[in-house]
Amino acid sequence: MVTADTPSALPDSADDAHLKEHTLECRELIKGHFLHAFRDTVRLPDGREATREYVRHPGAVMIIAQLDDGRLVLERQYRYPVQAVMVEFPAGKLDAGEGSLACAQRELLEETGYSASRWARAGVMHPVISYSTEFIDIWFARELSAGERQLDAGEFLDVFTASPAELLQWCGDGRVTDGKTLTGALWLQNVLSGAWVLDWQDSAGADTVR
Amino acid sequence: MVTADTPSALPDSADDAHLKEHTLECRELIKGHFLHAFRDTVRLPDGREATREYVRHPGAVMIIAQLDDGRLVLERQYRYPVQAVMVEFPAGKLDAGEGSLACAQRELLEETGYSASRWARAGVMHPVISYSTEFIDIWFARELSAGERQLDAGEFLDVFTASPAELLQWCGDGRVTDGKTLTGALWLQNVLSGAWVLDWQDSAGADTVR
Repeated sequence: MVTADTPSALPDSADDAHLKEHTLECRELIKGHFLHAFRDTVRLPDGREATREYVRHPGAVMIIAQLDDGRLVLERQYRYPVQAVMVEFPAGKLDAGEGSLACAQRELLEETGYSASRWARAGVMHPVISYSTEFIDIWFARELSAGERQLDAGEFLDVFTASPAELLQWCGDGRVTDGKTLTGALWLQNVLSGAWVLDWQDSAGADTVR
Repeated sequence: MVTADTPSALPDSADDAHLKEHTLECRELIKGHFLHAFRDTVRLPDGREATREYVRHPGAVMIIAQLDDGRLVLERQYRYPVQAVMVEFPAGKLDAGEGSLACAQRELLEETGYSASRWARAGVMHPVISYSTEFIDIWFARELSAGERQLDAGEFLDVFTASPAELLQWCGDGRVTDGKTLTGALWLQNVLSGAWVLDWQDSAGADTVR
């Protein structure tokens, strides 16, 4: 309940002891081909114990790549868990030891054939904070050069382009429901309006970033 | 690679045979206290076989609740998998057999103490299409009445309010990274600008919806 003394701005995080949970035990639940899941025992803020089950994930990147005419490089890919072909920004998982920008450059090239001369890291999102450690670094890419894509074995996806206005329309009418792509659309809308400002770098500087 | 004949609008989904995967076998991987995971064998578009591992999820709702002065009802909650206190819109999982609006009304009341007279379903998002069946129905709520919240045992979260401008600033500066909340911010921004239009209903009609 919000009362007269309910905080009305983002509260200071210095004193979150009444919210934090502390690990008592960490146990592997399953190590599959892809899913690596754990069940931890935690101490709750009130001193009682509970279990937390979650997927451990290496992290990922998403790329919002714009052609010189402003059009976006998008993909259509069948996603088995939701049994549908989804419209998405290009994205992929970090390889072991791989930097975020290097991963973004690799995934954009592999999935779409594009290389980009200019890159900007917008921010990070956590797609499923209740049961996965996954984060997705959000990258913008410009000054694109087309080449040949190099899909992994067993990877099937279509590449196409759309204007920002088309993408935003599809986000509003339900044709785009992928969470990371909706987050990318929020970034795109605010960057294009000038509300949010990106810090662009040349791709030559890639190795020095994260 | 995008070439002269690359589709430049959302392609027709009538012929996605070159993308679709077909289930050959479905096997339970683990049934935990919370995580229910499967490993399916699928036939790929090229006829070969592969496995797909994913979490089966009952679905969830998120509520974008606005007070009469326009401020938003938000939460701060510790999320164990990402080891951080996250700023979020209220949200929760569907109970067995529960309708989407009934769930939204229940979760808003339990977590924040608020009831709402006016509801509008904005759309749906899929937070993690690569390894979960989860969907989140996105609801807007207005004409709020404050009451007492009823947290579940073992649930700890702070309720606070913020203006839409504050929330959008936090999305841009990295203080909000929860994927569902970023998607909610996209909806909020476009509803407030008038670009996306909601279909409001009285809460009395709740039982007739989904």
